[in-house]
Amino acid sequence: MHFEAFSSSELAAYLRGIPAVNARLGDDSELQVVEVGDGNLNYVYFVSSARDPRRSVVVKQAPPFLRLVGEAWPLPRERIEREVAALRRFGALCPQHVPSVYHADSEKYLIVMQRLASHRVLRQGLTEGIVYPHLADHISTFLARTLFHGSDLYLSPEAKKAAASGGINTELCKITEDLVFTYPFEDHASNVYSPALPAVAIERLRTHEPLRRAAGEMKWAFMNHAETLVHGDLHTGSIMANEHETYVIDPEFAFYGPMGFDTGAFIANLLLAYYPRDWHDRMAGREPLAFQRWLLEQVEAVWNGFAQKFAQLWRMHEREAGRAWIGGPAEARAAEAFREEFMRRLLADTLGFAGCKMIRRIVGMAKVAEITSIKDEAVRARVEVRCLRLAEALLVQRRELASVEAVTALAAQVLAQTVDV
Amino acid sequence: MHFEAFSSSELAAYLRGIPAVNARLGDDSELQVVEVGDGNLNYVYFVSSARDPRRSVVVKQAPPFLRLVGEAWPLPRERIEREVAALRRFGALCPQHVPSVYHADSEKYLIVMQRLASHRVLRQGLTEGIVYPHLADHISTFLARTLFHGSDLYLSPEAKKAAASGGINTELCKITEDLVFTYPFEDHASNVYSPALPAVAIERLRTHEPLRRAAGEMKWAFMNHAETLVHGDLHTGSIMANEHETYVIDPEFAFYGPMGFDTGAFIANLLLAYYPRDWHDRMAGREPLAFQRWLLEQVEAVWNGFAQKFAQLWRMHEREAGRAWIGGPAEARAAEAFREEFMRRLLADTLGFAGCKMIRRIVGMAKVAEITSIKDEAVRARVEVRCLRLAEALLVQRRELASVEAVTALAAQVLAQTVDV
Repeated sequence: MHFEAFSSSELAAYLRGIPAVNARLGDDSELQVVEVGDGNLNYVYFVSSARDPRRSVVVKQAPPFLRLVGEAWPLPRERIEREVAALRRFGALCPQHVPSVYHADSEKYLIVMQRLASHRVLRQGLTEGIVYPHLADHISTFLARTLFHGSDLYLSPEAKKAAASGGINTELCKITEDLVFTYPFEDHASNVYSPALPAVAIERLRTHEPLRRAAGEMKWAFMNHAETLVHGDLHTGSIMANEHETYVIDPEFAFYGPMGFDTGAFIANLLLAYYPRDWHDRMAGREPLAFQRWLLEQVEAVWNGFAQKFAQLWRMHEREAGRAWIGGPAEARAAEAFREEFMRRLLADTLGFAGCKMIRRIVGMAKVAEITSIKDEAVRARVEVRCLRLAEALLVQRRELASVEAVTALAAQVLAQTVDV
Repeated sequence: MHFEAFSSSELAAYLRGIPAVNARLGDDSELQVVEVGDGNLNYVYFVSSARDPRRSVVVKQAPPFLRLVGEAWPLPRERIEREVAALRRFGALCPQHVPSVYHADSEKYLIVMQRLASHRVLRQGLTEGIVYPHLADHISTFLARTLFHGSDLYLSPEAKKAAASGGINTELCKITEDLVFTYPFEDHASNVYSPALPAVAIERLRTHEPLRRAAGEMKWAFMNHAETLVHGDLHTGSIMANEHETYVIDPEFAFYGPMGFDTGAFIANLLLAYYPRDWHDRMAGREPLAFQRWLLEQVEAVWNGFAQKFAQLWRMHEREAGRAWIGGPAEARAAEAFREEFMRRLLADTLGFAGCKMIRRIVGMAKVAEITSIKDEAVRARVEVRCLRLAEALLVQRRELASVEAVTALAAQVLAQTVDV
């Protein structure tokens, strides 16, 4: 395991040796290299033509250790290969929402890909109250296309099993198993509780049986249900967007897992943005209800859009193949009955995973900026208690919540509840 | 792919070259070789010392094609390797119920293993009305030990994922996907209907929505839920038994799949033996109710024994490891609540798979001798309709049937119903 970070001139020289990159940047000018990574995990560079800055690429170098700490905290060396493979697979299925990969070099732990120059990380945009008119449409398309085409509903059993075997991502799954499904529900050293979060709310995560049982079931599903190639970390920090376009990035956690893990991650992060929303708007002197309402509408739109597009791909495929999931020239009614039940079960999975993802962001190590940026400790704790209440309800009632509208109604109801901190 | 069947003298000479086999047979005598396979699929030989016939082994040769047809019907060449790997794994976990492997040679598609000289295929014994006093105890032990130790409840995530990847068995799983979960529910050329089976009963398998939906869900679970290394074909023809001992054989279908597929297969085959039972007893001039009652008692005993032993292994492991499924020093009540829910879900899976296994044995290609041996076509059809009725109820009501006693009560109720054929 040898890793060396590039200097700017070394990186420029390296990129000059790659025809596919020269084709993007032109070979008629110096290259400008600017490091833009946050410094925790990866090295990220913008590289552009000095003559025409619109010609640019992004270079991501993912060393086999935690950059912040160094080689003493090793990370799996395959993570860059996982990310490249997933970017290529998702890109083939959904090119309009996945950055193009121009070059990958796993010996140098490096990817050169499309620069999203006019796009921002979605979480930042949502924190600032920006409305993305196409977000739900784009993300539901991404979810429907990627989740459907990796599954047994589309692939032959041979292709699916080969893909599932190739999609095992042990080390990064272990991080999720621990940080999402295990530590938040115990008294673990990695948990971080905000100062005013009531002890009773923390205690409840450890002892409330229906919640523990449901979380245990979601962990089992995460570890055992190899349904499709999921992104594996589809929060609003893994999405870059502007008013017109939406891109999904950073699929290093991709593995063959349950479909609901991706749909749940996205919806969880909309809901995590929902409860702190009015505080942000009041701070900014804005009307506090409109954006909150918009967020809940996105929860509905992304699920309903996904469900409609997924079922449509499925029906179209069955029509073309001339057979339904349970064999034979499709008896349309039985095939539809199975499809309806499948989507209901997938909504239940989605809600269960969303609940776990919300809980880990409140009591686990990794937080969301929408909530940590609230300086008033009591306000923040009230937001956190609401997130935990909704998360618990999503987990425990996931099979009873028959529609996404029931979910948003519940979310609004929790917002209206009194919280004592 | 080259395969050559041995002559008796060639096989004897081959075995003489293997020290582990000589150690079993002695080297002081000629070897007697008798072919005993049924001729459809494999070559099976008993090989014994001419001087001391108690010193013997069984040799199974599994050519990479269907023996009955020849090389024109290829079978996966890996099936003998799958079988050897599963025999060794199950044998390590449960040596008292798995034949010892003395030698394996995948180039010759061959296994030399323990001869079960005083044991008979369980299906034959059950057809003759033989009571096996330890059967349920032994099979529940086999099920609990094998299903538990291959799962995430016992293995580390790393070991589990490596085992699951190594346990992919695409071609043989495809046979099950088609013959158990797909063809029986459509108008497929491979189906075989007995002459007096009413058309309405066949039609119902294709059109009754709740049944089709449930069967579709079981197919999804079979193809996606990689919970543990299952035997994959655990019917009463894959078990050899006598009054004292029980051995599980022929695990060539072994793969990482849902636990309930094995428990369901065994229970399905007890129930398939149940409905034709009184006819066999009346033919043999025996009291027709006692053995029927015994069969239902075995259904209860094998599930309850399994559930108790599985939970016991799990508790013991958590005690030793000092942590429960959802982390932390086990809060005993939450861990027990999850365990109870897990076993309830596993019973539902068991019943769903049992339903599919029963249906495929009635309308699919492969039958069970207990039913095909009924010469009276109307009697046979009445038995078959009862099997289909119970199978449907198991599938559709699998989550409502809260105990195995509810299942046996339902089975008895279906026996008492009138059937018009």
